[in-house]
Amino acid sequence: MTQVIEAIRNGVDTEQMYGTLDAIKAQPELAAFQFRASNEWIDGAHNRTTIQRFYGAGQEDESREEPFVIDAGEPAILLGTDTGANPAEYLLHALAACLTTSLVYVAAARKVRLTEVRSTLEGDMDVRGALGISDEVRNGFSRIRASFTVKGDAPEEKLREVVARAQQRSAVYDMVTNGVPVSVEVETA
Amino acid sequence: MTQVIEAIRNGVDTEQMYGTLDAIKAQPELAAFQFRASNEWIDGAHNRTTIQRFYGAGQEDESREEPFVIDAGEPAILLGTDTGANPAEYLLHALAACLTTSLVYVAAARKVRLTEVRSTLEGDMDVRGALGISDEVRNGFSRIRASFTVKGDAPEEKLREVVARAQQRSAVYDMVTNGVPVSVEVETA
Repeated sequence: MTQVIEAIRNGVDTEQMYGTLDAIKAQPELAAFQFRASNEWIDGAHNRTTIQRFYGAGQEDESREEPFVIDAGEPAILLGTDTGANPAEYLLHALAACLTTSLVYVAAARKVRLTEVRSTLEGDMDVRGALGISDEVRNGFSRIRASFTVKGDAPEEKLREVVARAQQRSAVYDMVTNGVPVSVEVETA
Repeated sequence: MTQVIEAIRNGVDTEQMYGTLDAIKAQPELAAFQFRASNEWIDGAHNRTTIQRFYGAGQEDESREEPFVIDAGEPAILLGTDTGANPAEYLLHALAACLTTSLVYVAAARKVRLTEVRSTLEGDMDVRGALGISDEVRNGFSRIRASFTVKGDAPEEKLREVVARAQQRSAVYDMVTNGVPVSVEVETA
């Protein structure tokens, strides 16, 4: 029993984690993943994304029995009816979620038991860009500020190291800070 | 009645749209927006974002009576229990949703009535980066492919122009392709 209890840290099964890391080190091709999202326009600013399958660890994953269904929208002042958070807010969510999970996994690997992880993210946007009014400002956020509160059974310095390492390894932090090449294809019939 | 019907195109109130554009052109300071997201770690790869207030059009917006609550997770193979789509999948959702809304707004402004907008996005990731196994690969997607199907009462060329213009103006497309400066602050007590 003690062993089982010890193996789970921060809700992460560390035995499984070390097993996964060893498997990928031995067979790097298992690391090739592809994630997917399908979106459908409903009306106005309302559209809906469905997420279920992905490819990873050498096979098509079929473990998710139901899709995740995620609605987007815009508030009234941006011409929507609040059918969901808006796309820029979802980007903040993706970033917060990824930094948090990275932090929790790094802490589990470094034997730090966390008791609390909270964050607030803010993104500043001059909407003249996205509305097509001005070419002097960019369309997206000019900057994003993330403020984390992290508590656990480790000294402050160690907790800060865990956060720094999470930043270094977060997939979404990498994408949002460095950018990703995106190709867009269009079919009209 | 005819006028009212004409004013709504693709679910977008074009009278309101032109009014908003005119107001911002006259008073550019109304264009300063700030969007926010607050995230709380639950357990393992499960964390939850709450989104409600934002600043825009010269004031704190209080029009949303309830927050949007969005759960993130990871599938079993990435050490989670599927408590929600994963952060990288949410980034694909943010991108799909933003391109779609931009496209719908641009079409409304250009008097194109859309009948269908669908998209599928794929992102390729070598998870050795995010798992800390390799410094040779990046943490995030190496590339994202978006495939759109767009139908409406306009010739193919016009529909393609609308998509191209949406790409040029999408806030999330700008952020994902060009990157955004992100600052991270940590408090540990």
